[in-house]
Amino acid sequence: MKTAVLVAIGDELLSGIRREGNCASLVWLLHDAGWSVLRVEIVPDDVPRIVDVLERWVGKTELLVFSGGLGPTHDDKTRYALAEYLKCGLSVNDVLYDRIVARFEDASWKALVERSRPVQGLIPVEAQGVYNPAGSALGIHFEKSGTQVWSFPGVPFEFKAMARQELTPFLSRKQGESARSWKSVAVIGVPESLAVERVPEIVADDRLHISILPSFGLVEFVIRGDASLVESAARTVRERFAGHVLPEGCVTLPEAILATGREKGLTFSCAESCTGGLIGAALTDVPGSSAVFAGSAVVYNDQAKKKLLSVESFVLDNYGAVSGECAESMARGALDRYGTSLALAVTGIAGPDGGTQEKPVGTVWFAEASWVAGEVESRSFVRRLDGDREFVRERAARIALIAAWRRMCEL
Amino acid sequence: MKTAVLVAIGDELLSGIRREGNCASLVWLLHDAGWSVLRVEIVPDDVPRIVDVLERWVGKTELLVFSGGLGPTHDDKTRYALAEYLKCGLSVNDVLYDRIVARFEDASWKALVERSRPVQGLIPVEAQGVYNPAGSALGIHFEKSGTQVWSFPGVPFEFKAMARQELTPFLSRKQGESARSWKSVAVIGVPESLAVERVPEIVADDRLHISILPSFGLVEFVIRGDASLVESAARTVRERFAGHVLPEGCVTLPEAILATGREKGLTFSCAESCTGGLIGAALTDVPGSSAVFAGSAVVYNDQAKKKLLSVESFVLDNYGAVSGECAESMARGALDRYGTSLALAVTGIAGPDGGTQEKPVGTVWFAEASWVAGEVESRSFVRRLDGDREFVRERAARIALIAAWRRMCEL
Repeated sequence: MKTAVLVAIGDELLSGIRREGNCASLVWLLHDAGWSVLRVEIVPDDVPRIVDVLERWVGKTELLVFSGGLGPTHDDKTRYALAEYLKCGLSVNDVLYDRIVARFEDASWKALVERSRPVQGLIPVEAQGVYNPAGSALGIHFEKSGTQVWSFPGVPFEFKAMARQELTPFLSRKQGESARSWKSVAVIGVPESLAVERVPEIVADDRLHISILPSFGLVEFVIRGDASLVESAARTVRERFAGHVLPEGCVTLPEAILATGREKGLTFSCAESCTGGLIGAALTDVPGSSAVFAGSAVVYNDQAKKKLLSVESFVLDNYGAVSGECAESMARGALDRYGTSLALAVTGIAGPDGGTQEKPVGTVWFAEASWVAGEVESRSFVRRLDGDREFVRERAARIALIAAWRRMCEL
Repeated sequence: MKTAVLVAIGDELLSGIRREGNCASLVWLLHDAGWSVLRVEIVPDDVPRIVDVLERWVGKTELLVFSGGLGPTHDDKTRYALAEYLKCGLSVNDVLYDRIVARFEDASWKALVERSRPVQGLIPVEAQGVYNPAGSALGIHFEKSGTQVWSFPGVPFEFKAMARQELTPFLSRKQGESARSWKSVAVIGVPESLAVERVPEIVADDRLHISILPSFGLVEFVIRGDASLVESAARTVRERFAGHVLPEGCVTLPEAILATGREKGLTFSCAESCTGGLIGAALTDVPGSSAVFAGSAVVYNDQAKKKLLSVESFVLDNYGAVSGECAESMARGALDRYGTSLALAVTGIAGPDGGTQEKPVGTVWFAEASWVAGEVESRSFVRRLDGDREFVRERAARIALIAAWRRMCEL
């Protein structure tokens, strides 16, 4: 099997300011093409450390991909590290850089890009420059001791564009005979440990590579191996967890909500307080979601709850914004305003402030409203989520999506 | 300077299914405490590869932290790899596991956690178990050849809780005399290359460590070094970019919008179509945002635009949902419904479908509405964003936030 090593370069990745995403995404592409990724490494913007990576991996893997460190500023060291490793100088690749400058119509931007030519166009003379269709820094490519080395800019959009442009054809050329297939099955409301015990023979099957990914309320089985085996394994998992499995082809709750909504001709809307738009953002992340999802009313203060969703003052005065009464009123408001068949509302205290003795930080009320036999029915429930603001918000959004999908299945 | 190596373990991290965040966050903590992170590595759930990491780094770094692979399922290999490296067997630490079981009140959950004891309680006999305050898998710790080795579960919330519990005191004990300070200054509307040229002496100062982080429309200077130097450097940067710098202490646009809103007594709301809630989610991610941010009306279909924001049918019929007229109507609707001093609207085609010849995918209209001398004023502008759905949505949200902040500064 072909092997690859991916290296992300950047102090910002080693300081928590930025999260590495380029290599993580690329591995998926490699996996599909039947490659095995030996390791992902994150190293600082430092010539000796980048050279060290080259010395450790060139000749030991077919593919070595670098992300980052090709920008115009002083902390971009990759091109110099590659030159030092190749024991050669650098020179500007004007042919490729002219193509980049030519892309810019606005004169001031053109001038700006032109100014970066002496740095962003610089390529080790023993390597080839790689055209950047999405940005102004050139990529770098060379082959040594059987290792193909590629270096792309770290700006996610540029990296993605160049990896697609350069590596995809390269991969399909290099790809092994039996490209591996994979299928993902998402199961809801079953703890990780139980999930595994239900399909022992699949987990034990050496011909399959099973990843079990638990995430609050949902366990995803990622099954990899030869197509035929993957197919039957996925079918078995779906059968064992019948009633708890997201629809075929859905691995996320938004996908499930949209698929089930489409299948049953249901529409969905929500009202968000503490989640502040996370639910809407998750649903609209899926292309074509407008067929099922009408929208979400983010109502972050009392006035907004009243004016947008007709939550009555006495509800807010007597029960407070974080209450089942307010949640149901919000859900009914969204159902009416958006004219959907189902609406879900979330209101809670994400913290760190705003908690009280009886309603501590992490208290979140959920409500759903839907049309049943010409009448609007609504119900609510509460959860105490123990964590920081980010945790409470994410979990609340997740709980809401689970509740919405389960309710859609009932309708 | 003390050195650390962080290792994330998990096939899912090497397949793009999950993104590594634990190590990325931990490095920030280490940086603050004056540590230097030599490398972050991501390795698969594979005993030999985990052992290889231990053999390469034990004795070569003061701190070696593992994240992940301590769960109850077959693909969790870390505890066995540590035992193999230590050439010892494993045994259940009942004392610590009893504490974990005792946390669960619900009988069925208690039983469930109890069932995982034989695996999640298992610790190499040559190492110590570490209590997990947030989950059910024990952590592992040992010291060898001057290297402190810690292994925590990979579930982000558990990792965070255990790192805080175990490493923070450990770090402050180990911390070098001159703990480094850092300051971040965010500059808007200045290209990366220019940003650097404006502060050459700071970029050239060897006593400072400057990271320049460009991200669509915003360049962040992260300045690290001794407190006094960092202070004056940050001041210089702020002076050089006067008028383009986010308020002191703000490194993100949501923080800037809330700070400026608070300072000027302005309130803000928005209306989102293609961004689907991303703007609201970003703003409410900041604690205390309700003081300035009233909410966001996510209106994903025409009916929602009409019913929630009173967008008139003739606007939708004559100009379409993706038009300056619709964007302004949405902004005015949000301004009225939320009763804020400023409202911003976004409507566009995120793709991959829905594009036309005259309105291709990536066409996004923005509008702002605000009260000026007792009258509502609104204006709109359009952008053509060239990228995939995720890119278009994220960029559109970013452009909206920049426009909102700039407008707030004018009001």
